[in-house]
Amino acid sequence: MSTRKAGGRARPGWTRKDLIGLEELCREEIQLVLDTARSFKEVSSRSVKKVPALRGKTVVNLFFEPSTRTRTSFELAAKRLSADVLSFEVATSSVSKGETIVDTAKNIEAMKVDCFIVRHSLSGAPALISKAVSPAVINAGDGCHEHPTQALLDLFTVREKFGGIDGVRISIIGDIRHSRVARSNIWGFTKMGAAVTVCAPPTLVPLRVEEMGVQVTYRLADAVRGADVVYLLRLQRERQKENYLPSLKEYRAWYGIEPADLSHHRGRFFLMHPGPVNRGVELTSDAAEQDRSLILEQVTNGIAVRMAVLYLTVGCVR
Amino acid sequence: MSTRKAGGRARPGWTRKDLIGLEELCREEIQLVLDTARSFKEVSSRSVKKVPALRGKTVVNLFFEPSTRTRTSFELAAKRLSADVLSFEVATSSVSKGETIVDTAKNIEAMKVDCFIVRHSLSGAPALISKAVSPAVINAGDGCHEHPTQALLDLFTVREKFGGIDGVRISIIGDIRHSRVARSNIWGFTKMGAAVTVCAPPTLVPLRVEEMGVQVTYRLADAVRGADVVYLLRLQRERQKENYLPSLKEYRAWYGIEPADLSHHRGRFFLMHPGPVNRGVELTSDAAEQDRSLILEQVTNGIAVRMAVLYLTVGCVR
Amino acid sequence: MSTRKAGGRARPGWTRKDLIGLEELCREEIQLVLDTARSFKEVSSRSVKKVPALRGKTVVNLFFEPSTRTRTSFELAAKRLSADVLSFEVATSSVSKGETIVDTAKNIEAMKVDCFIVRHSLSGAPALISKAVSPAVINAGDGCHEHPTQALLDLFTVREKFGGIDGVRISIIGDIRHSRVARSNIWGFTKMGAAVTVCAPPTLVPLRVEEMGVQVTYRLADAVRGADVVYLLRLQRERQKENYLPSLKEYRAWYGIEPADLSHHRGRFFLMHPGPVNRGVELTSDAAEQDRSLILEQVTNGIAVRMAVLYLTVGCVR
Repeated sequence: MSTRKAGGRARPGWTRKDLIGLEELCREEIQLVLDTARSFKEVSSRSVKKVPALRGKTVVNLFFEPSTRTRTSFELAAKRLSADVLSFEVATSSVSKGETIVDTAKNIEAMKVDCFIVRHSLSGAPALISKAVSPAVINAGDGCHEHPTQALLDLFTVREKFGGIDGVRISIIGDIRHSRVARSNIWGFTKMGAAVTVCAPPTLVPLRVEEMGVQVTYRLADAVRGADVVYLLRLQRERQKENYLPSLKEYRAWYGIEPADLSHHRGRFFLMHPGPVNRGVELTSDAAEQDRSLILEQVTNGIAVRMAVLYLTVGCVR
Repeated sequence: MSTRKAGGRARPGWTRKDLIGLEELCREEIQLVLDTARSFKEVSSRSVKKVPALRGKTVVNLFFEPSTRTRTSFELAAKRLSADVLSFEVATSSVSKGETIVDTAKNIEAMKVDCFIVRHSLSGAPALISKAVSPAVINAGDGCHEHPTQALLDLFTVREKFGGIDGVRISIIGDIRHSRVARSNIWGFTKMGAAVTVCAPPTLVPLRVEEMGVQVTYRLADAVRGADVVYLLRLQRERQKENYLPSLKEYRAWYGIEPADLSHHRGRFFLMHPGPVNRGVELTSDAAEQDRSLILEQVTNGIAVRMAVLYLTVGCVR
Repeated sequence: MSTRKAGGRARPGWTRKDLIGLEELCREEIQLVLDTARSFKEVSSRSVKKVPALRGKTVVNLFFEPSTRTRTSFELAAKRLSADVLSFEVATSSVSKGETIVDTAKNIEAMKVDCFIVRHSLSGAPALISKAVSPAVINAGDGCHEHPTQALLDLFTVREKFGGIDGVRISIIGDIRHSRVARSNIWGFTKMGAAVTVCAPPTLVPLRVEEMGVQVTYRLADAVRGADVVYLLRLQRERQKENYLPSLKEYRAWYGIEPADLSHHRGRFFLMHPGPVNRGVELTSDAAEQDRSLILEQVTNGIAVRMAVLYLTVGCVR
C-alpha cells in the first residue's frame, strides 16, 4: 500500500490531532517526525515527485499574516502527497467585520476539510482554533509563541549533517525575545540533547530564558567560539521602531556575521538561518554564500518535514 | 462508468447550457438539482473525497466582485469532481482599460475552458456572457438579481430537515430590496410549494413583491410567529450610507434575533443565514450558536449543490 | 507510453535547458516547437483535456510584473500536462527588502522544482536566473528584450493559416521600440523566411532595426498594402507620459485600424494582436470583430505552444 511505502514503518507514537508547538512534544514524538521526514525526503528527489498518501484530502492554508515561503512550502508538501489545497489569506481587518477567527474556521470546517495550517500574529490562535474544530490544526507560526515545523526542519538538518543531535553545540543569535523560531528551536534542541546558547543585545533576551535550559551571552565572539552550528535569526525590521535596538548599523556591527568570522573559525561551524536573509544585516553577501551555509538545505528539508507532519496528523486514521 | 456512479440516475430533465436564475427553472429542474446533490453530499463524507466526473475539464471562477466564501465553495466542488480550476478576480477598474466583460470571457473561452462561474456587481452580467460564449455559465451572484446556487443549497437544507419543502413556512428577514439571495429564494421556495413571508422595514421591501407570491410584514414578531424557518439576510453595511435605515442600532433593535426570541419560540423554528454573519446585528452571538441554527449545514450543503450544478451543466454531454 | 503519444515523435533537436529568446534559436529548433505544439493542440479539443506527460513535476510561475493572461496560459498549459503549479507574484518592492532575484530563485529551487516561468520588467532577468539555477527557465517576457512564447504562438498561428511561414508578408504596427513582442516576432518571422515590415511613428522605431532584416515604413497605408498579416501591437498607455507620442488621438488617427481599412483591403490580410486589445486605439470595436481577426486563435494556440515548450524543456530527460 502506498501510504505504507511512504511512511515506511509502523507509527507507534503519533496520537495527537494537532501540532501546536514543540513545548508539548516528547523526544519520541520529535524522533518520529524526523524519521518519517527522512523517508519523504526521497520523494522530492524522484522524477515523479508525488505519492498518493493524502489523495482526496483537503488541506487549508489559513493565513492571517502574509507569508509566501511557509505557505508555499506547506502547499508543495500537501500537493506532493496528492492532497487538494485551499488558500485563505485573511486580512486581519476583515476579522473586525464581525466574524471571529473561530467562526471563520468553523465555516471552513463545514466544507469537510481535513487539515488547517494556521498562521496568526497572535500567540495562541492555532490552539484556540484547534479546540473549536475537529480537523487537524498545524501551527505555521503564531505571534511570539512557536513555529514548530521550522524547528523540526532545523532539527532534521542538524541530524542529517551531524548524524545525530545529542551533544551538538548550537548558538542562536538575534532577536530571541520576539522570535517564535527561537522558542521552538530552544524547546526542540534542548529536548534532543543539544547544548543551546542564545546571544543577543540584553534588550532582546527574554527574562528567565535560562530556565528553558540554555546558556546566555551578549557577545557574538563567545557565541561563535566552540559552536558546531551558528543559527542566525531574521531581524524583523519592523521591530526597529520599538527602540529595542539603538540602530540597525550598530546591530550589524555587533551581531552581524562577516567573512572574517567565518575564516577565523573555518571548518568549525555551519551557518543556519530561517530565511529570508537580510543580506548585509544578519550576514554579509559573501558569508551567505559560504559552503558552510545550510540555508538552502533547510528549505529542501522543509518540504520533507511538512510532508511528514501532514502525513502523521491527516494521513493516518486514529 | 464513474460519472454514472456519481450522478446515480438518468437525468431526464436537464437541458440547459447555463444556470442564470431560479426564475426560469421549473419545479422538476429544481428537483433534479436537489436529487443530484443528495448523491454528491455523500462524497464529501468519504475518506477520499473525490470522484472523477469532471476529470480533464477546466472550470473558471470569473469574479468581478471579491468573494472568498462562494468562490472557495465552487473551487472545492470543482476539485472534488476532479476538474482543474482557474481563478480570475477582475478588478472592475481593469474593465475600464478598454476591454469589455464579453472580451474577457471570449479570451478565456479561447483557452478551451468548460465552465464559467460568474459573479458581478451588475445584474445581467452572467446572462450577457452566456450569450457570447459556448461553455456553461453559472451565476454566482449578479447585482440585486439572483444568486441561484445559494437558493438551491437553502432548498436542499430545508428539504433535508423537513423531508420536503411543500407547505414549509419560511420567513425571510432583512434587506429584501437589495438582496439577490432573497430574490432567488423567493422564486425557489414558492415554486416548491413553501409559504414565504418577507419582513423588513418598509424602505427595504421592493415594490409589488406580493406579486411574487409572498406575504409581507413589517413586524419581526409576526414573521417569527408560526414560522418553521427564519431566514436572516446579511445586512450589507455599505447600504447604510444610502439612508434606507435610520441607524444600525435601530435595525438591530427591531429586526435582530436575540436569545429571547428563540427561547420564546423554542422548538418552533430553525435559523438560516447565507453567511458571513454580522454577529450582534442580524443575531446575537448566543443566538448564532443555538442548536436550531442550520448555518453550518448550509455551508456543507453548498458543496454538494455546487457539485450537482457543475455536474449537470458541464459533466453530461447534451 | 503517453508522453510518446503526446510528443508524437523523436525529438532530434532540443538540447537547451531554457527558452530565453528566439534570437538564439535556429530554424530547426523553432520548427521543432511548432511541430510539437501541433500534436498538443489536439489535447485541448478533447473531452478530457489532460495528458500525464509532466505528472509529478513542479512548475513555478515567478512573475515580478503583474500579468493575468500569460500567467494563466502557462498555468493551464502546465495543468493539462498534469504538472503541479506554484504561483509567485513578487512585488518589486519586496526585492528591495534585501533579497535579490537570484536569492529568490535559489530558495525556490531548493524546494526541488522543475521549471521557472519568469516575467520581469528588466531585460536579462530570466537569463540571470537561468545561470544561477539548474531547473529549466522559460522567459515569459523581460523588459524590452523578448517574449519568445508569444512569438512562437504567432508563428504557429500563421503557419496553420497559410500552410507555412516562408514568403508570408507580415507588417508589425505600433510601438516597435519598446515592444518585446515585436523583437521576438522579428527574430522568429525573419528566421522562418517571412517578409517583415515594421510601421510606427519615427520616435517609436528602434535605431538600426533594418539590420534585423526588416523593412521600415512610417505610413500605415504602406504597411497594410500587400500584407498577408497585419500585426498590431498593444499601445502601452503608460508610455504616453514619456512624450514619444504627441497624443493618443493622433496615434489613433494615423495608426489605428478601422473598418474602412479592412473593407478597402477585404480578403487581403488577417489581423493579429497579442492582446488585450485597447478597443478604439489600435483598432475599432468593429474591426476587432471582423472574421479576418486571428486574435482568439492566437489565444487558443498559446496553450498548445506553451505545452510544447514545457514538454521540451521539462518533460524529456536530456
